[in-house]
Amino acid sequence: MSRNILMLPGDGIGPEIVAEAEKVLNKVNDQFGLGLNFESALVGGAAIDEADTPLPEETLEKAKAADAILLGAVGGPRWDSLPMAKRPEKGLLGLRSNLQLFANLRPAILYPQLASASSLKPEVVSGLDIMIVRELTGGIYFGQPRGVRELESGERQGYNTYAYTESEIRRIGRVAFEAAQQRGKKLCSVDKANVLEVTVLWREIMEDLKREYPDVELSHMYVDNAAMQLVRAPKQFDVIVTGNMFGDILSDEAAMLTGSIGMLPSASLNSQKQGMYEPCHGSAPDIAGQGIANPLATILSAAMMLRYSLGEEKAAEAIEAAVSKVLDQGLRTADIMSEGAQKVSTREMGEAVLAAL
Amino acid sequence: MSRNILMLPGDGIGPEIVAEAEKVLNKVNDQFGLGLNFESALVGGAAIDEADTPLPEETLEKAKAADAILLGAVGGPRWDSLPMAKRPEKGLLGLRSNLQLFANLRPAILYPQLASASSLKPEVVSGLDIMIVRELTGGIYFGQPRGVRELESGERQGYNTYAYTESEIRRIGRVAFEAAQQRGKKLCSVDKANVLEVTVLWREIMEDLKREYPDVELSHMYVDNAAMQLVRAPKQFDVIVTGNMFGDILSDEAAMLTGSIGMLPSASLNSQKQGMYEPCHGSAPDIAGQGIANPLATILSAAMMLRYSLGEEKAAEAIEAAVSKVLDQGLRTADIMSEGAQKVSTREMGEAVLAAL
Ligand SMILES: CC(C)[C@H](C(=O)O)[C@@H](O)C(=O)O
Ligand SMILES: CC(C)[C@H](C(=O)O)[C@@H](O)C(=O)O
Repeated sequence: MSRNILMLPGDGIGPEIVAEAEKVLNKVNDQFGLGLNFESALVGGAAIDEADTPLPEETLEKAKAADAILLGAVGGPRWDSLPMAKRPEKGLLGLRSNLQLFANLRPAILYPQLASASSLKPEVVSGLDIMIVRELTGGIYFGQPRGVRELESGERQGYNTYAYTESEIRRIGRVAFEAAQQRGKKLCSVDKANVLEVTVLWREIMEDLKREYPDVELSHMYVDNAAMQLVRAPKQFDVIVTGNMFGDILSDEAAMLTGSIGMLPSASLNSQKQGMYEPCHGSAPDIAGQGIANPLATILSAAMMLRYSLGEEKAAEAIEAAVSKVLDQGLRTADIMSEGAQKVSTREMGEAVLAAL
Repeated sequence: MSRNILMLPGDGIGPEIVAEAEKVLNKVNDQFGLGLNFESALVGGAAIDEADTPLPEETLEKAKAADAILLGAVGGPRWDSLPMAKRPEKGLLGLRSNLQLFANLRPAILYPQLASASSLKPEVVSGLDIMIVRELTGGIYFGQPRGVRELESGERQGYNTYAYTESEIRRIGRVAFEAAQQRGKKLCSVDKANVLEVTVLWREIMEDLKREYPDVELSHMYVDNAAMQLVRAPKQFDVIVTGNMFGDILSDEAAMLTGSIGMLPSASLNSQKQGMYEPCHGSAPDIAGQGIANPLATILSAAMMLRYSLGEEKAAEAIEAAVSKVLDQGLRTADIMSEGAQKVSTREMGEAVLAAL
């Protein structure tokens, strides 16, 4: 059996952190006889510079042919003034949409070794373990019509469309209910059903699905309240399911509760379990090329890849255990540094994980 | 000079907290010779029960004729299953839109006496003082078209429209720049300009306005990052300006950073400085009628009313000083109770503020 993994380093710190994750994947490939083959391609700003488009045809073809994709990050100020259709982000959005990666899984986990990094009080966040399930190929990110038009009055109006069909809601709902079944059996669906019609339908479909998952306790929360509750008492949540835009906001908020967003991986899956895996943090252009970025979120994304797309649970656990071990050893990149710990570079952190495997 | 104040107690704890604020307004009315006249009317669920509509014509007429409005809160589970157009929230949204109360000011202030109530570490939030300026009569809350339609495939699709015109953006931008001028001279505009065309226009207009306010430092932040930064380092912000939906989410998140949402007032103003004032917290149906709700956010909303709509700065400051004094005295309603303090009822808290005036 052979499996194709596409590496998309992207921009900013992307190449540095993906390089470390690739070493780790290579090692478990040998150790566990996984039969992984690696390819790489350009996406985002790197692709704009080379090929004048954030998502070259060749990259898209390789992505479609891959069993799984590991992405670093895209974007940076260098490309910020380009028109929307030519910006690095379009590379990422194009991959999500072309591969129909509708299910975005974003765990927010507090590593006990890093508890002090959180800006929240220890008792509020210790043991935090939330899974956010975000719809990723619909909603206002992709809704039509959209653009800027001139009104009769002569002034311009910007507009976007927030839309979901029943089937789009149902398929992300199933992923969330199933995730809840494998965890604490509590699912909170987040919407704004007191104001937005599209989320009235969302709530109705979630209620409808509930009957198929009698072992899961479903609740509903308005998005403004969810943003509050995440700050007030985040441990009340097990799995949260929500649309693309609310998911973007709440998953970043939840990630930051841990204080170490440099630790958090993510998975974006389609219905064939083909997936794109990437760290939750961005391209961090301010520290790119300095060799100080934290590669652990990308390494943990590689572990998620092994688990969700390749069915290699043992190899996934081995990586996660190795990461936990280097944290126990007191090794820290700058972003998670604390007194008494040993500060290491991107590469030293990668080497330490390799050694711990 | 005589000024008309409309009291809209609304639902849940609304009547209890508005009653205390009215006593306080009556007292400063006498003390400072303000010439205030009070009327009251029904809105929200209370209006649905009496008049089968969340915003009776009579209420709207009184609101239009008033110099300022003090609202308690609307909504509750009793009315949650009604169709969208008949729900309590429509009363609130109808008032905002009919009176063109486009500028929503939501301070998030940490009272030193209540610092321990925050779920964040003291060093992260001590001295917190942010002003969120939220656009309140446009964006996806009011965008057309909206609804649920049947597609050719036979399945339903829910949809809403997120739209802003240049002039809508410009008028809220001016309010925010002016607020920044009177505070720390830093304005952060929050958008999602890497994905949503409507917010590309938003960013452009904010940049454009900057030239008129050379003393204000303008920055831009994506909404997902803003949700993170509020948790990570909230004191980096002075004034935040954003659209209706993002403002709903971020202002609640910011409010919760203080740990005492029962303390936070808000103002919603139109271009004639006519305004509706209300606490940031909701109708709290679970504790309604028990006499334990915190009236201070409503009392502080009355102070904002005196400041922004009636130009009575001295009376506003007198109320704020009285509130600070009762906190110094150790009086606490249940929501802000902590060890060693003295627990008081809604009414006792109101009486204490009166006594401190
Ligand atoms: C880069 C941006 C387009 C993207 C998004 O908004 O989805 C990012 O914030 C994310 O959450 O993956
Ligand atoms: C009650 C609801 C319609 C309202 C809103 O979403 O604007 C509330 O959450 C608020 O922020 O005032």
